[in-house]
Amino acid sequence: MERPFTFINSAMSADGKISTKKRKQVKISGKTDFDRVDELRASSDAVMVGIGTVLADDPSLTVKSEERRRRRVSEGKEENPARIVVDSKARIPLTADVFKKGVGKRIVVVSKSAPSDKVEALKAKADVIVAGGEEVDLPVMSGELKKRGIDRLMVEGGATLNWAMTRAGLVDEISVFVGNLIIGGKTAPTFMDGEGISERSEAIELDLEKCERMDEGVVLTWRVRSSGSK
Amino acid sequence: MERPFTFINSAMSADGKISTKKRKQVKISGKTDFDRVDELRASSDAVMVGIGTVLADDPSLTVKSEERRRRRVSEGKEENPARIVVDSKARIPLTADVFKKGVGKRIVVVSKSAPSDKVEALKAKADVIVAGGEEVDLPVMSGELKKRGIDRLMVEGGATLNWAMTRAGLVDEISVFVGNLIIGGKTAPTFMDGEGISERSEAIELDLEKCERMDEGVVLTWRVRSSGSK
Ligand SMILES: NC(=O)c1ccc[n+]([C@@H]2O[C@H](COP(=O)([O-])OP(=O)(O)OC[C@H]3O[C@@H](n4cnc5c(N)ncnc54)[C@H](OP(=O)(O)O)[C@@H]3O)[C@@H](O)[C@H]2O)c1
Ligand SMILES: NC(=O)c1ccc[n+]([C@@H]2O[C@H](COP(=O)([O-])OP(=O)(O)OC[C@H]3O[C@@H](n4cnc5c(N)ncnc54)[C@H](OP(=O)(O)O)[C@@H]3O)[C@@H](O)[C@H]2O)c1
Repeated sequence: MERPFTFINSAMSADGKISTKKRKQVKISGKTDFDRVDELRASSDAVMVGIGTVLADDPSLTVKSEERRRRRVSEGKEENPARIVVDSKARIPLTADVFKKGVGKRIVVVSKSAPSDKVEALKAKADVIVAGGEEVDLPVMSGELKKRGIDRLMVEGGATLNWAMTRAGLVDEISVFVGNLIIGGKTAPTFMDGEGISERSEAIELDLEKCERMDEGVVLTWRVRSSGSK
Repeated sequence: MERPFTFINSAMSADGKISTKKRKQVKISGKTDFDRVDELRASSDAVMVGIGTVLADDPSLTVKSEERRRRRVSEGKEENPARIVVDSKARIPLTADVFKKGVGKRIVVVSKSAPSDKVEALKAKADVIVAGGEEVDLPVMSGELKKRGIDRLMVEGGATLNWAMTRAGLVDEISVFVGNLIIGGKTAPTFMDGEGISERSEAIELDLEKCERMDEGVVLTWRVRSSGSK
């Protein structure tokens, strides 16, 4: 099935953590990286996060630079890329910042297990896509997004969604800012959590595309070697 | 208290894991990195791991290159650096490869909680240092190692010891090979586990010294900003 070109962008500590064991957002990168991420958002058709990230951090996922928002409008687009939340059980609060802040389309992807009254209520705030029985079926979701004209999709976490999208073969590129700090913690979320592999042969293989110093850290850009059908 | 110059070297996946959730050694780096690590070993006075790593992987921790072993001997040293295991309860098997393979000094660091018969048995295989009551007291251990002439100490993992040594302010430099694979897994060991921080302000701050492409990945070398008294 056709799907969008999909890339993950994240910021992790030098020991691979994307937040502390308290699972709240922490500052990992600096101004230059912040600006790089804003440009990635502005040049995407949609930005996606998992419900875990919404519940933890309540991000707005808007484009921060006014100039970039103007650029998008001059190109006939909305100020912000579509904002997508992957949320099987429709747990997202109707008061989430992703609904309140900025203009542009919102999409909540739920599964058949989501309570129908909550799904109805969400329809006032967002387009709702139903994919999968218990959990969101990510390949079906990706196909559906492509049909809706999303050609370039940015995934911004968190740990569980990053893993699931990559494992499903739905990710083409991964960029990660590695920051100059150690967070530690056996239970702190890492760049990719989820089930993980058991054997080396099951690993997801990458190719290093770029390695650039930025702020006080490094941005690594990887191509996913066998990212499944696209 | 005086302590050795101490550095950690490790290999992690692009998502910060040092092995899979099965906690068995996996190939992360390539030949060039292997050779770099061998040189780091050969130019250290001692190489250290935690008991978790011995029980999981049973590494020998010897210098692999014959030429480097010869170089050490010509400098009046033993073929291999001292091999140190941090092992509060003296759980290390007497048949561990670190005892069986290669020549050179072995040191097992235990705490007062280690069973005395096992400690006696270990004395046939290694020097035993007792430091701390329940767990090994790492600062005391470091001071003791310095007194025994260890000026340059290489720490090779695992996740728990890396964290504990760094948090204790006993680490000066950190180098990590970031490999071209994704391992994933909520429970897979990461570069630094242990307790971890709760707040951003508790983070261990680093300075990026070097960022070099190597094999199919990158080696990042960090200086620990405030590594405590030395
Ligand atoms: N540093 C960074 O760049 C960064 C960026 C983003 C987030 N974060 C951090 O990441 C943490 C949140 O990560 P997280 O792992 O808890 O949550 P997450 O990845 O944002 O969301 C995971 C949730 O997505 C839902 N989901 C629906 N279908 C799924 C499927 N097929 N596969 C997997 N998940 C599916 C699941 O909940 P349901 O079953 O209820 O749908 C799952 O629990 C927070 O600590 C946040 O601060 C950091
Ligand atoms: N990729 C790599 O570069 C690499 C390198 C090494 C290891 N590894 C992997 O790392 C994993 C093992 O890591 P691990 O975290 O389980 O074990 P570890 O860090 O090797 O050893 C931890 C143990 O050290 C002992 N210890 C004694 N005093 C301590 C103190 N003050 N603070 C902390 N620990 C102290 C504790 O056991 P006691 O209380 O019994 O003493 C503790 O459980 C394995 O999966 C291995 O394959 C990977």
